[in-house]
Amino acid sequence: MEIINFGEHLMLDGYFGNEEKLNNKEIVLKSLGELCEKLGMRQLTKPEVYFAPGNDIKDPGGWSGFVVIEESHISIHTFPKKGFVSADVYTCRNGMDTKLVENYLRNTFELKEAEVQFTKRGTKYPVENIY
Amino acid sequence: MEIINFGEHLMLDGYFGNEEKLNNKEIVLKSLGELCEKLGMRQLTKPEVYFAPGNDIKDPGGWSGFVVIEESHISIHTFPKKGFVSADVYTCRNGMDTKLVENYLRNTFELKEAEVQFTKRGTKYPVENIY
Repeated sequence: MEIINFGEHLMLDGYFGNEEKLNNKEIVLKSLGELCEKLGMRQLTKPEVYFAPGNDIKDPGGWSGFVVIEESHISIHTFPKKGFVSADVYTCRNGMDTKLVENYLRNTFELKEAEVQFTKRGTKYPVENIY
Repeated sequence: MEIINFGEHLMLDGYFGNEEKLNNKEIVLKSLGELCEKLGMRQLTKPEVYFAPGNDIKDPGGWSGFVVIEESHISIHTFPKKGFVSADVYTCRNGMDTKLVENYLRNTFELKEAEVQFTKRGTKYPVENIY
């Protein structure tokens, strides 16, 4: 059976961002749409952003946004009081412009530091339908 | 500045699943809820599942589901004709029961094979608010 890898997944965790930008629902919403557009991804849903009230453990609250794209997704979770953002860009195409994604998120939230992890997903995805 | 790691992220890509179960919207929806419950996660939104019509590249269509939990998320994308499922469980707690998640997904979709990746997210998350 011929196999390929299904997709690519970038995870960015960013630090010391701008509190106001991280706390701006419209910026989170706009980022989800713009990332889709810049990566040439087709949206299956409109981006949605929810307020997360926080918990008593280590989360002071923030915004959680999500958009479903061609059978994969982009998500952004912000934590304004921590200056922190955690984003995922998972696409079913190969050859993601990872620098574009990193720079976009760094600029949008004025991050001073970022950890980027990048991994292949579904490395044994069948080329032909099996059913 | 005292730091901790923000959370944990499990990625499971599963193969040779049951076509009917992968193509069952209700099963995808139920899985999102049950995984939250089993992991003791608080849902911020009701789980939502969308039909993805597929594209001309390598995707024959399927279901894409998502639930926002305590500032992180669970997602499941299914591809019935490929027997494939790609799931993410990202939580802001540490100590995820990864075997529970893997077994739950293996059983639910009758996967014969699975690739599991597990990573720490936000390893420099500040313990105290910085703003």
